[in-house]
Amino acid sequence: MTNLPQNPTGEALKDALLEIGKRAQKASRALAVLSGQRKSAVLCAMADALCADREAIKEKNAVDMQNARESGLSSAMQDRLQLDDKRIDGMAEGLRIVASQVDPCGKILKHTIRPNGLVIDKVSVPIGVVAIIFESRPNVTSDAAGICIFAGNAVILRGGKEAIHSNQAIASSLNRAAMAAGLPDGVVQLIPWTGHEAVGVMLKMNEYIDLVIPRGGERLIRAVMEQSTIPVLKHYKGVCHLYVDKQFDREKALAIIVNAKCQRPSACNALETLLISRDALPKLAPALVDEMKRCNVELRVDNSFAAYAPDAKRAEELDWYTEYLDYILSVKVVEDVVEAVDHINHYGSKHSDGILSTNEESIAYFFANVDSATVYANASTRFTDGGEFGMGAEIGISTDKFHARGPMGADELTTYKYLVTGNGQIRS
Amino acid sequence: MTNLPQNPTGEALKDALLEIGKRAQKASRALAVLSGQRKSAVLCAMADALCADREAIKEKNAVDMQNARESGLSSAMQDRLQLDDKRIDGMAEGLRIVASQVDPCGKILKHTIRPNGLVIDKVSVPIGVVAIIFESRPNVTSDAAGICIFAGNAVILRGGKEAIHSNQAIASSLNRAAMAAGLPDGVVQLIPWTGHEAVGVMLKMNEYIDLVIPRGGERLIRAVMEQSTIPVLKHYKGVCHLYVDKQFDREKALAIIVNAKCQRPSACNALETLLISRDALPKLAPALVDEMKRCNVELRVDNSFAAYAPDAKRAEELDWYTEYLDYILSVKVVEDVVEAVDHINHYGSKHSDGILSTNEESIAYFFANVDSATVYANASTRFTDGGEFGMGAEIGISTDKFHARGPMGADELTTYKYLVTGNGQIRS
Repeated sequence: MTNLPQNPTGEALKDALLEIGKRAQKASRALAVLSGQRKSAVLCAMADALCADREAIKEKNAVDMQNARESGLSSAMQDRLQLDDKRIDGMAEGLRIVASQVDPCGKILKHTIRPNGLVIDKVSVPIGVVAIIFESRPNVTSDAAGICIFAGNAVILRGGKEAIHSNQAIASSLNRAAMAAGLPDGVVQLIPWTGHEAVGVMLKMNEYIDLVIPRGGERLIRAVMEQSTIPVLKHYKGVCHLYVDKQFDREKALAIIVNAKCQRPSACNALETLLISRDALPKLAPALVDEMKRCNVELRVDNSFAAYAPDAKRAEELDWYTEYLDYILSVKVVEDVVEAVDHINHYGSKHSDGILSTNEESIAYFFANVDSATVYANASTRFTDGGEFGMGAEIGISTDKFHARGPMGADELTTYKYLVTGNGQIRS
Repeated sequence: MTNLPQNPTGEALKDALLEIGKRAQKASRALAVLSGQRKSAVLCAMADALCADREAIKEKNAVDMQNARESGLSSAMQDRLQLDDKRIDGMAEGLRIVASQVDPCGKILKHTIRPNGLVIDKVSVPIGVVAIIFESRPNVTSDAAGICIFAGNAVILRGGKEAIHSNQAIASSLNRAAMAAGLPDGVVQLIPWTGHEAVGVMLKMNEYIDLVIPRGGERLIRAVMEQSTIPVLKHYKGVCHLYVDKQFDREKALAIIVNAKCQRPSACNALETLLISRDALPKLAPALVDEMKRCNVELRVDNSFAAYAPDAKRAEELDWYTEYLDYILSVKVVEDVVEAVDHINHYGSKHSDGILSTNEESIAYFFANVDSATVYANASTRFTDGGEFGMGAEIGISTDKFHARGPMGADELTTYKYLVTGNGQIRS
């Protein structure tokens, strides 16, 4: 990347960021007209570059790790920050997987011939310039860049200050590889200034940035949304529900509940609240309490369920809104699917919610009325994932209703334009 | 609509707007599960209600007209404000046209069966609650409400203060008709408070409003965008271009230029800047100057074109950015399609831009590289319109890249959700 000023502020910072924006826009125009094959080749060249530059990347990562130890970063955070050969290979492999997908651009989404002979094609095209704001893990630098570029978008990255040296090494490696493949400087750029001021300026650069994706905790996401005049694709949180209907298969239901809660409790698609129809209680509750005990899951129950779990803590109003991301499950008894849906639409986060039922009518009601990105019948909520949906790779899971919902792959990083072919038509 | 407080401010205004938001959200959930047939019936009932309530509507409109005269509103603005039987019939007819379309909801956009047997359907669903902020014309109240409701969305309207009495009469008529058709109160609501404070509060009500569409001048739209934390679909302006390539059909080109500029100069899809390749000048320029004179179009030309129009005013830098909406055309000579595209992507508004050419390569370059919602070859830019695109009705034309671009019909007021059907799948 071109030389950038050291820690500019005020107008100097603004100018420097505008330069980054202009470079990204220029690069995005070159990317937008590349064939899928050329984009795949660029991504493979980037993967090779990461492997070739691995010693330099590890060296820069060592600086971040040293700073992390000195500033007393938690060992979990240090683990996320650390890059070794295996992780660098993983980043390269991720780029190659994206490169093997079908080009998301140039798809004819709709083809119309009008009575006057105009031919209207609605064609998928890149969004343009995507800014990603993320927290500690440096491998996001390459994962996010890869998927953005494959969709034909230039990317501006802004990572956390803990990972700044690692991120710079990775971003430079990727950008150099793109330039060596014939693209202009600016396909991948990392904001090198870690102060808040830079983010504030960036989030108003509507003219050069088309989309912002914040990846991180809820606080980061809220801050981005409040400041940004650029459209933001958000992933707030996953307060995911399962509802056990009156008629259900006990063995399947128990297996799904255990899987949704325990297979990876820290994931956003993990189960947080179990709703049980009153009629299902005798058949489900005793076995459920045993299973949850066996799995070391702490229950937070309402008054009705307390009869089956007398020692369990009572759930408070706040529990129904809470994404525990831990071995904790809130349990509530409801009358029927109608009450279950009301609870989910009120307390949920529009992420992933499911019904466990053998009754077609209940399933149909649940599918029609639950206002979430992904609605399940008789399967674990843990399937909400780009890989599991067959997208190859994902840049995140949207809890927004706008542009993209649920798992987002390269297709979700495109928009469309209309190409209208005439032979002299004028409007009368 | 339920009784609302008179001119509340501060917390009282906030509470009152939250009530409106909650009602809209509840109504949207009832609308979301209606069949297309039921929604058509609701729209037809609304059309009937407007006709039945026409005397009351005209009476309220007379109050607005009286105020308009007293406050010295321009006669053009007074004309836009006036409602007579013909305009009320037109509003009713507009609702019936929307009602005759195919239901935009419930479409299966993608159907996937995963190796583990999970069936994933991506299905179109309503967005939820749509807020429309608009200026004087009261017929927007019914046009916008109709298209939103047909897409399954509840609508919150905020019109200009000049039309407040007319808008209230129309919105109440529509909402009463929806309630008589069995829907909850709140399908159509109009904000009755005309102060700026109400808009500011509304634009932060993310929990209850899913989308904001401002309709009006650029100043209104910028203000909305700057204040809103809710996604905004914008139509900034139409700085539309035609580019005449080296090889072109003169008769067709002249007819298209005249049509694009003169058929309705006040429209956003009217031509504002003509780009001409230097090689095309001898063949085009003399006839063009004559035609434009005949049509009373004032030219603003660059130095190269001035040889053909010595009396014409010279274009200034600002002209290239300007949406004249008048019988004025800026004219610039470029070397080739590459320079034309660069000009369009730099000065344009991503609305509608076309090439007039008989050369396939130039057309392909133009189509691939122009970053606009609608890109034409050999046709007038005036076709950018929901009706002309076969959408039946339109709620506007988006110059955004996000969610929807170009003409927006009922389809563009939907989003999607994934319905995942399993038989006990858990993630391993």
